[in-house]
Amino acid sequence: MTENVVRARLVFAYDGTDFAGWAMQPGLRTVQGELEAALAKVTRVPDVRVTVAGRTDAGVHARAQVAHVDLPLAAWETMPGTRKRTPAEGLLGRVNSVLPQDVRVHAVTEAPAGFDARFGALERRYVYRVTDTVPDPATRRFVLAYLRPLDVDALNAASATLVGLRDFAAFCRPRPGATTIRTLTELSWLRTDAGVLEATLRADAFCHSMVRSLIGALLAVGDGRRDVAWLADIGASALRSQGITVAPPHGLTLEEVVYPPGDQVAARAEETRARRSL
Amino acid sequence: MTENVVRARLVFAYDGTDFAGWAMQPGLRTVQGELEAALAKVTRVPDVRVTVAGRTDAGVHARAQVAHVDLPLAAWETMPGTRKRTPAEGLLGRVNSVLPQDVRVHAVTEAPAGFDARFGALERRYVYRVTDTVPDPATRRFVLAYLRPLDVDALNAASATLVGLRDFAAFCRPRPGATTIRTLTELSWLRTDAGVLEATLRADAFCHSMVRSLIGALLAVGDGRRDVAWLADIGASALRSQGITVAPPHGLTLEEVVYPPGDQVAARAEETRARRSL
Repeated sequence: MTENVVRARLVFAYDGTDFAGWAMQPGLRTVQGELEAALAKVTRVPDVRVTVAGRTDAGVHARAQVAHVDLPLAAWETMPGTRKRTPAEGLLGRVNSVLPQDVRVHAVTEAPAGFDARFGALERRYVYRVTDTVPDPATRRFVLAYLRPLDVDALNAASATLVGLRDFAAFCRPRPGATTIRTLTELSWLRTDAGVLEATLRADAFCHSMVRSLIGALLAVGDGRRDVAWLADIGASALRSQGITVAPPHGLTLEEVVYPPGDQVAARAEETRARRSL
Repeated sequence: MTENVVRARLVFAYDGTDFAGWAMQPGLRTVQGELEAALAKVTRVPDVRVTVAGRTDAGVHARAQVAHVDLPLAAWETMPGTRKRTPAEGLLGRVNSVLPQDVRVHAVTEAPAGFDARFGALERRYVYRVTDTVPDPATRRFVLAYLRPLDVDALNAASATLVGLRDFAAFCRPRPGATTIRTLTELSWLRTDAGVLEATLRADAFCHSMVRSLIGALLAVGDGRRDVAWLADIGASALRSQGITVAPPHGLTLEEVVYPPGDQVAARAEETRARRSL
């Protein structure tokens, strides 16, 4: 990075209901499109490009998505305006004042040297929410209404067989040249007091459609239509399995992205780039 | 009540965002309109009339609203259909299958003798939610975004002066022949971990616009524009005060309606009817 550029780190949330996903698509309303338009407007930099930690699909939500954006130092220094605040505080206030209500930036900081929102992340945490009782109208955009009763013990027993370092090709939409080997650190379910089942998934990274494919397969076990032997069978496939129903997007929220301490972010990003291209 | 009629008690929730309030209005989408239409459809009783505990305004939500409805015994007995369930279970399943997603019935029971959802209630509990930090997109339909910092201690100190048995005329939209004397049992604020301030209000009943008028006046104290002396001054008025900004509806949710034990519901309803008409 040159000395004339500042890399800013943004933490932000969105209600994915009315978005065609994260990634910019011509003619569609996307989170990337709205965020880049807002940043371009307040910084007056026309070609702002944002790099995100998790490229969420249409209808998927985020509570603490992370992105980085490079801004010319000259633009960065105008952000405080006439008020006594830092450029990061100025950018936070300005960008929220022009973003639509379904996207909110919670934090802006100057990123440490070598920070990369995508390749520098140690871990992504997603939560999938589903209810098998009468849904709450207040959370219906964020919780899948499931018509069959779900057995949380069966869900946890089946989920435990999926945790670890392995090839998740059976659960991934194929992308040329990309590995489907991932470390799934956690996949566990609990039933909240509100009658909502929450599946927590943690991994270094998830390949395309992996979370919703895992959830779709597990729901079939949790409602008794399938068993763990079936799951083991389809999960062993080296190709994307046709037997899996991908769970609907609106139950899924990206909750957190974890990074190493500031002095290790550059090394982590280098390491990830090398591994992903294997 | 004749022996040919069953009074059913319904507990239900709604997202008030897309409703013109509870009460039926010609040409407008109301919760009463949707609920009565759904009940009429599944019971095949054309003139179903529902009586509700809290007539919420446009944009106000409910987590556990209560209503009663009288149904002909003949219709009630068809509710189980061919499945082995009670009429109450049958009605619950059927009515949810035809209601829109922003209204969900959580419970149907056969009401005890003399039960009246409106006059039989001992207490209504409302929560008003407001945030003075960056709003969460996921809850933006249920939490007021407030631009000034709020002091929770100042809010609680001012709220304490309003609790008790008194005439709330200053905070009520006038209705001919209706008393404005109420017992406000609780009015207290707390700041949650999520940066949301929640005001809990409990009373035997609230007159029209009372909750949002109280909140509007308190927010002016909580952000430092007004003080407790001002609140005492306007609160003492025997007429609706012009100095109060009514808080926006979307922060307000009816959380709970409390009734006496089954053998006391009839006496309670009689007592309330007599008192309200004083």
